[in-house]
Amino acid sequence: MNSDSLRAKIRLFVEQPLGQGQEIALSQGHAHYLFNVLRQSIGTQIALFNNRDGEWLAEIVAGSKRGATAQCRAQSAPQRSPPDLWLLFAPIKKARTDFIVEKAAELGAARILPVQTELTNSERIRQDRLQAHAIEAAEQCGGTFVPEVAALTPLPKLLADWPENRALIFADETLSEGARLAPLPPAPAAILIGPEGGFSGGERSRLRALPHVHPIALGPRILRADTAVVAALTLWQSQQGDWR
Amino acid sequence: MNSDSLRAKIRLFVEQPLGQGQEIALSQGHAHYLFNVLRQSIGTQIALFNNRDGEWLAEIVAGSKRGATAQCRAQSAPQRSPPDLWLLFAPIKKARTDFIVEKAAELGAARILPVQTELTNSERIRQDRLQAHAIEAAEQCGGTFVPEVAALTPLPKLLADWPENRALIFADETLSEGARLAPLPPAPAAILIGPEGGFSGGERSRLRALPHVHPIALGPRILRADTAVVAALTLWQSQQGDWR
Repeated sequence: MNSDSLRAKIRLFVEQPLGQGQEIALSQGHAHYLFNVLRQSIGTQIALFNNRDGEWLAEIVAGSKRGATAQCRAQSAPQRSPPDLWLLFAPIKKARTDFIVEKAAELGAARILPVQTELTNSERIRQDRLQAHAIEAAEQCGGTFVPEVAALTPLPKLLADWPENRALIFADETLSEGARLAPLPPAPAAILIGPEGGFSGGERSRLRALPHVHPIALGPRILRADTAVVAALTLWQSQQGDWR
Repeated sequence: MNSDSLRAKIRLFVEQPLGQGQEIALSQGHAHYLFNVLRQSIGTQIALFNNRDGEWLAEIVAGSKRGATAQCRAQSAPQRSPPDLWLLFAPIKKARTDFIVEKAAELGAARILPVQTELTNSERIRQDRLQAHAIEAAEQCGGTFVPEVAALTPLPKLLADWPENRALIFADETLSEGARLAPLPPAPAAILIGPEGGFSGGERSRLRALPHVHPIALGPRILRADTAVVAALTLWQSQQGDWR
């Protein structure tokens, strides 16, 4: 028997503070999910987390069509926030953008920033829908942290306000193979993955002019943007993050 | 101007030998794709590869509804086959299985072996459809190699015939965090990713009894199977493969 058996299988992200005996009002959406989708009832044990107080085992103590109440019984895991790594990516087709957000949450990005570049096709994103994907991924991967999905921001604006101490790792498809794959810089850091068409010459010049920029080459084949996101997050987490 | 500008954007995998002046008969499917989907015509330059002869620039010299002919003009890239790394995975939901095959081809797996484990839901796969996904991924990622997608094979049969010198890296979710993330064993090697439910106790014991087995833990969060595939392939390629 491993430790998973002692933990509730149903995990929900909530906004409220969690603590011994605390009663948590669950939303109509959560009530629908618990009672209609999962066919649960009063007395079911669930796990709650809120990005601050770790994971709490809680019992459903009341419920209706309009909501439910859960009461915290005991902390089942400590708060565990990911290292200070941002993911910046240029939105692509819907399914692959959803996928990128899901994977970034699973792999432990602290913030997710959709970026508009010169060769980005999308001019808008559904920020609320992407945030919901990040929540669902965190609920399913057993984490206690949901990364914030920021609003779509033009790359020049992001670079103009770039924090001086934050390393910026970017996948540069013009770099010769194998160049600077490792070591990657430590936190605070950010990974930037461009659109399928890559960065423009002007963008690449601006990126290279930043103080803590770190271009990397991800192997001899051309990776799709979604693959490059997972590959770059994996390399950073294994070298500098919480996989060590 | 980078080297991509000198290379044809349309890339097709074919079975026939490629060489100077060689005429290649393209299939009805290829003809439909070239003439109807991409709106190309006689005289278009395309790139061909066949897993053996590198990439060849070829010109479409004849075409009809039933097929097309291309003639090789010059070799545009040398043959580049991936290192001897197999990916073994337990099929999951259709879209995520497709995704795994696509990513394995992009990331440079030499063979893809769908495996039936005790907790695998799927009892069959569409081998031809998965092979077509691998071909499409290789065409799009600029590679010159398409990994073979093998038939679905039960895990005990695979392990009974396991080649003695091939290291078997498997993601073991019961392993304590950070254990044995690196270094990974060199080629010949294989990565095995289990189904969402993990391996059974019996399977885990059989795996651990193999001579060159190497269990790894992929970070503190629970990764979905498709994420674990990309993460494990990335780690191996960056440590032992052709990303160095």
